[in-house]
Amino acid sequence: MAVYTHLGAEEMAALIARFDVGTLVSAKGIAEGVSNSNWLLETTGADGNGARFILTMYEFRIELADLPYFLSLLDHLAANGCPVPRTIHDREGKLFVTRTSPAGEGTGEDKALALIEYLPGVSVNTPTAAQACAVGAELARLHLAAADFRAHRANGMGVAEWQRLAAACGPEGLTQIDPALAEIVVSELPRLVAAWPSDLPTGVIHADLFPDNVLMLGDTVTGLIDFYFACNDILAYDLAVTHVAWCFTDDNSFRADVSAALMQGYESVRPLSPAERAAFPLLAEGAAMRFAMSRAFDWLNTPSDALVTRKDPMGPARRLGFYAANAGIFA
Amino acid sequence: MAVYTHLGAEEMAALIARFDVGTLVSAKGIAEGVSNSNWLLETTGADGNGARFILTMYEFRIELADLPYFLSLLDHLAANGCPVPRTIHDREGKLFVTRTSPAGEGTGEDKALALIEYLPGVSVNTPTAAQACAVGAELARLHLAAADFRAHRANGMGVAEWQRLAAACGPEGLTQIDPALAEIVVSELPRLVAAWPSDLPTGVIHADLFPDNVLMLGDTVTGLIDFYFACNDILAYDLAVTHVAWCFTDDNSFRADVSAALMQGYESVRPLSPAERAAFPLLAEGAAMRFAMSRAFDWLNTPSDALVTRKDPMGPARRLGFYAANAGIFA
Repeated sequence: MAVYTHLGAEEMAALIARFDVGTLVSAKGIAEGVSNSNWLLETTGADGNGARFILTMYEFRIELADLPYFLSLLDHLAANGCPVPRTIHDREGKLFVTRTSPAGEGTGEDKALALIEYLPGVSVNTPTAAQACAVGAELARLHLAAADFRAHRANGMGVAEWQRLAAACGPEGLTQIDPALAEIVVSELPRLVAAWPSDLPTGVIHADLFPDNVLMLGDTVTGLIDFYFACNDILAYDLAVTHVAWCFTDDNSFRADVSAALMQGYESVRPLSPAERAAFPLLAEGAAMRFAMSRAFDWLNTPSDALVTRKDPMGPARRLGFYAANAGIFA
Repeated sequence: MAVYTHLGAEEMAALIARFDVGTLVSAKGIAEGVSNSNWLLETTGADGNGARFILTMYEFRIELADLPYFLSLLDHLAANGCPVPRTIHDREGKLFVTRTSPAGEGTGEDKALALIEYLPGVSVNTPTAAQACAVGAELARLHLAAADFRAHRANGMGVAEWQRLAAACGPEGLTQIDPALAEIVVSELPRLVAAWPSDLPTGVIHADLFPDNVLMLGDTVTGLIDFYFACNDILAYDLAVTHVAWCFTDDNSFRADVSAALMQGYESVRPLSPAERAAFPLLAEGAAMRFAMSRAFDWLNTPSDALVTRKDPMGPARRLGFYAANAGIFA
């Protein structure tokens, strides 16, 4: 949640000149993204009527090789009617531009920057059932719209990565966070790995559709954003991730009405097959494990006085326990 | 440079409803301000044609008792034609609203929030002479426009505070930053204190007019912002602060053309008196000392791994040396 690289007005103006979007009117660094810097830009617009964009500079973690996947996916989904921001191509038609870092700045590595459409809407904290229903339907439309997207990216946060993260935390680290977390990993992770399905329908998934990554106006979804975990994996797993993210209170109480609405919204567009439905409790446990492990790793590896807010791994860990005990709710 | 308090869409919408600005369309936390949280908001607007605002939540340092001074000053200056953002009053006519912190959040203290007009423009990194001239003229207009502003606020970053900060750093702390800094404090601070003028014209000053706090489009000043150091003090000292902030390169080389343009711009609106001119090198040394001391204190008291960028106290310290050796340039 920061802007890692300072871009002065002069350099920002020169960057913007590489796109057909008019000249710079305003630029505000925005507090979004933990692995990139983002600015909300206003320009005079290609037509002179004003336009707004998000400029993203990729700082960490994201492999440059993956950028074309993420950015062309946005174009593909937007062209197919999904509420996702389009990528603005530069004057040469490129999806992103490269900035040569000035001498002495940070690691000195060149940075990639992409200009992305600005979408209205705000992220809700406590979704209503109607909002969850709308999100479920948009997720299903995304799955259908991406069916003919040609590129492929493996899920870097899949089952193998949960095991790697658990090992990197170690039993001591997990116990230090919460003894219950260490117990859950010992008792549940091997079971999930062994039972993880390999025969369910796959496709492009968002893989991180928390409320933060959905823009809404009232009950309407105006934007699905932050596709930097998007990959090819089990479609119903994406719904399971969304379920973990949307269907509990801040203190991890299950919200039955929101859950029912999310599932109903999704199935109004793309009904689950009997096999997907049967596997759903397991997929939800896996989704909870995925976030428990990534948060546990970040928890142990983020200085406690850093301005980045550490997310509590015990939230998803407790939700995992709920799914294990209540598989029947999805029957 | 952060957003310290999370405001969900629901709470943000409820806050916005206390103002006559329409309903919330978008809210982005922006990476500005080290002592407050800021959001760039879009609403449907009081007239339904859309409007943008900066919402500021005061987190640290600022005494609630000072807020009416800062916010009513914005109104006064805007009403007198200065390019400063107006304060949007709430439906009851208040300059700011108070938010009761939810149980368990941070210190639990209530927070004040103000809604402020959004202004276009970007902050330059390397000002041209023409830009410095425009800024000088706007600063002088601000001094004239505030002449009939009734409220009074003492300068909390005046001479006494430089001494307090120097003592808080201690000779060891200053030496740890740079032995030259400790020497400058020993040799220059007592001299500045003894010679500091008490008979120059005073009034409302911005007191922190770095390029970051000026929005420009080309050579036009579209916004003077961040008035949270504004106070009543020597008017020519405000020009001296601006001189320290604008008339050197990043490696502290003096930019004679920018300096001449800044002074000329200011004097085109408000000519300096002979006494102000004679005192100007001393005022500039004092301005440099003020930033050297506040930065030295922050340098020693900010964890090196914090995401907040520490500003190098040696920049203003070297500029102080320049003024001491080159008083003749202002003759």
